Amino acid sequence: MRIGIAGLGTVGTALCRLLVENRDAIAIHAGRPIEVVAVTARDRSRDRGIDIAGMRFQDDAVGLARDPSIETFVELIGGDEGPARASVAAALAAGKHVVTANKALIAKHGLTLAAQAEEKGLTLAFEAAVAGGVPAIRTLRDAMTGNRIDRLHGILNGTCNYILTRMEAEGLDFATCLADAQRLGYAEADPTFDVDGFDTAHKLAILASLAFGTRIAAETVYVEGIRAVAPEDIKAARELGFRIKLLGLAAISERGLAQRVHPVMVPAGSAIADVDGVLNAVSYHGSAIGDLVLVGPGAGGEATASAVIADLTDIARGLVSLPLGRPVEALGRPAAVSIDDHVGAYYIRLSVTDRPGAFAAIAGRMGNEGISLESIVQHHERGATLEAHPPGARKTVILITYDTTEAALRRALVAISDDGVIAKAPRVIRIEHFD
Amino acid sequence: MRIGIAGLGTVGTALCRLLVENRDAIAIHAGRPIEVVAVTARDRSRDRGIDIAGMRFQDDAVGLARDPSIETFVELIGGDEGPARASVAAALAAGKHVVTANKALIAKHGLTLAAQAEEKGLTLAFEAAVAGGVPAIRTLRDAMTGNRIDRLHGILNGTCNYILTRMEAEGLDFATCLADAQRLGYAEADPTFDVDGFDTAHKLAILASLAFGTRIAAETVYVEGIRAVAPEDIKAARELGFRIKLLGLAAISERGLAQRVHPVMVPAGSAIADVDGVLNAVSYHGSAIGDLVLVGPGAGGEATASAVIADLTDIARGLVSLPLGRPVEALGRPAAVSIDDHVGAYYIRLSVTDRPGAFAAIAGRMGNEGISLESIVQHHERGATLEAHPPGARKTVILITYDTTEAALRRALVAISDDGVIAKAPRVIRIEHFD
Repeated sequence: MRIGIAGLGTVGTALCRLLVENRDAIAIHAGRPIEVVAVTARDRSRDRGIDIAGMRFQDDAVGLARDPSIETFVELIGGDEGPARASVAAALAAGKHVVTANKALIAKHGLTLAAQAEEKGLTLAFEAAVAGGVPAIRTLRDAMTGNRIDRLHGILNGTCNYILTRMEAEGLDFATCLADAQRLGYAEADPTFDVDGFDTAHKLAILASLAFGTRIAAETVYVEGIRAVAPEDIKAARELGFRIKLLGLAAISERGLAQRVHPVMVPAGSAIADVDGVLNAVSYHGSAIGDLVLVGPGAGGEATASAVIADLTDIARGLVSLPLGRPVEALGRPAAVSIDDHVGAYYIRLSVTDRPGAFAAIAGRMGNEGISLESIVQHHERGATLEAHPPGARKTVILITYDTTEAALRRALVAISDDGVIAKAPRVIRIEHFD
Repeated sequence: MRIGIAGLGTVGTALCRLLVENRDAIAIHAGRPIEVVAVTARDRSRDRGIDIAGMRFQDDAVGLARDPSIETFVELIGGDEGPARASVAAALAAGKHVVTANKALIAKHGLTLAAQAEEKGLTLAFEAAVAGGVPAIRTLRDAMTGNRIDRLHGILNGTCNYILTRMEAEGLDFATCLADAQRLGYAEADPTFDVDGFDTAHKLAILASLAFGTRIAAETVYVEGIRAVAPEDIKAARELGFRIKLLGLAAISERGLAQRVHPVMVPAGSAIADVDGVLNAVSYHGSAIGDLVLVGPGAGGEATASAVIADLTDIARGLVSLPLGRPVEALGRPAAVSIDDHVGAYYIRLSVTDRPGAFAAIAGRMGNEGISLESIVQHHERGATLEAHPPGARKTVILITYDTTEAALRRALVAISDDGVIAKAPRVIRIEHFD
């Protein structure tokens, strides 16, 4: 099978290398050899450590996508518009199968592109777009077809998980760990897409569509990143028996589709809590199977290229699956459940001005909203001591609530703030028990 | 797609129920409805809680396999000979696709049956044969085609894992936990197949074939079950920072194919150590992906039926894969690596007669074989105290070795036994660090 690859970055280079190194074994799996005949890359002259002698360089991705000599087009450019979108659409229009690692493209234009592929009986495969080498997509699409899946969650961004793991292990702050991640190549120069949760949200929206048989709805994902997670929160989590992870979580019910990305306190010792560093994990809850958990490398050129090759061998063997596991027309359009309607337990860290009645005011506001408190921990902030703290000193108060709605909690926190008893905006982290 | 099911036990009944309950969703995934038109069962009159009105009862499995009204035959009888083997062969001969949950059949006759399916372009699928609902087979066959896989390990028998988990959590002995497992339906009346490791060995041999591209070689798996694991071993493991699991482990190298099933001490806190109860887990090490770990329900009617349905939807969609991921003719025939050549660390528990020179004799025999000891722990056995122990009392001595060969260790233990310094046969458990 003759393929063209648009984009020779880390993944594209690893893909070329693996296709050569494992050429014979891949040919046996695929039923025929897979050969890279043409590529595009921004810089032709860069030494990538691979032999590009047999490959033609095309000037642009759209031209490559239409190249009559290729049967399958591999898009590794990235971005949800521009040449990535144009080339994938052009390849499908030209009757070529497409493999992509582009989560932003699938999250935003996946429905249109899937319908285009479906109409022509072509493959549009994107295993590499979610969780790198972990077969997160095909497990939903192929392995759980006998299940009604009602919820899923995952650690879907290795950059964030690396930062949180380092913060926890070494007591460092976010900025220090981010700088280290950038130095080690785990984070981009502009880390917004990763650390503010958008990357996780794209991946979550793709998984939710496959799991629940619903249209991809990236625009309704509630998104909160990890910038505000402080060493105090991580320390408090440990003391309370939790660890903090950035999760994507999705659930479907008669109320609709809930999709959210935010830091979560998960019980220490749970499967997801032990997933450290740049690893990714997904957990699917199916009606027949119960919980199925997959853990593996979420990023890295070779792991991501491995997922691309799995899609390529499917195509070479003649296996054409519907991109989203079902016809696009059959996908449901559930209402979006607002984060305001989220029901769960909460961790709240307040910096309280130490004056008479302050705590009673806080407890009263919680009570007014019907919020019960599971635990209350208070201690003086750095610089003060129990023996001698000046009038007006601040105390840190940590509250753990029983289940309540997000809307009620927010009302209570606004009221507490209006009462003038807290010195800084409250810090809130949602708790999940996964039971 | 019209199917026939041979065997209406726990899995067959759950399969019928799920195919009805999720009929519409499965039809969307599969591209067409999947309908059970005929079945066989030992007892027709038993109330299984499912509607069998639309199904014809056939007298025997071979007759069902040849039934012209079915396109796909599902074998859920079990056993590696008799009606299971005859009916699967008959179905393939009659041009029908086959789905089976029968690990013993595939472990013993999988090569012949796979060749038969391959020759006719038929599917022979057996996802449900290994690790129940966990997609252990298809992940190797489809998701890791870009990898050279050099080793794998897994917890593949829920009965053994349940027993070991209970023994550890409650300090109970093997017999008590086995009796409980039997009472709860987790173990058969004759538990030999599970607790002596044969079930794990069958599953391991199937996974090794798919992972390494080698012929199924169940007959060369070294097998040791969990009957001899004592509460003292579990307690010692905990003190040393390990947990005890029954693992199947396979590796391929220039020396050949090593396959072994035995209790293993794994580091507490490792992914595999935290897999408790009836859960199963597999860990694959691929050249591109590194470690990929899958955890989920290893048994149970619904989870196993879920795996059968995944295979059925593949067939309904027209996806025909080679049963072993490669043509049978392309499968390698590596030499079997004997357990004598295993290199690793060992835990050894000795009951030593307390007399002068006993310990020196033991240390000397180890030294003679070039075995270095990482740690030595000794304490008096129950009934004796440090203050007052009679001459000839016994001490328990626990040795942890550095890496050595199994053959050297066995020679040393024979010599120690011949020296007359130990009162009982030594207890040996292999240690794996997975690093």
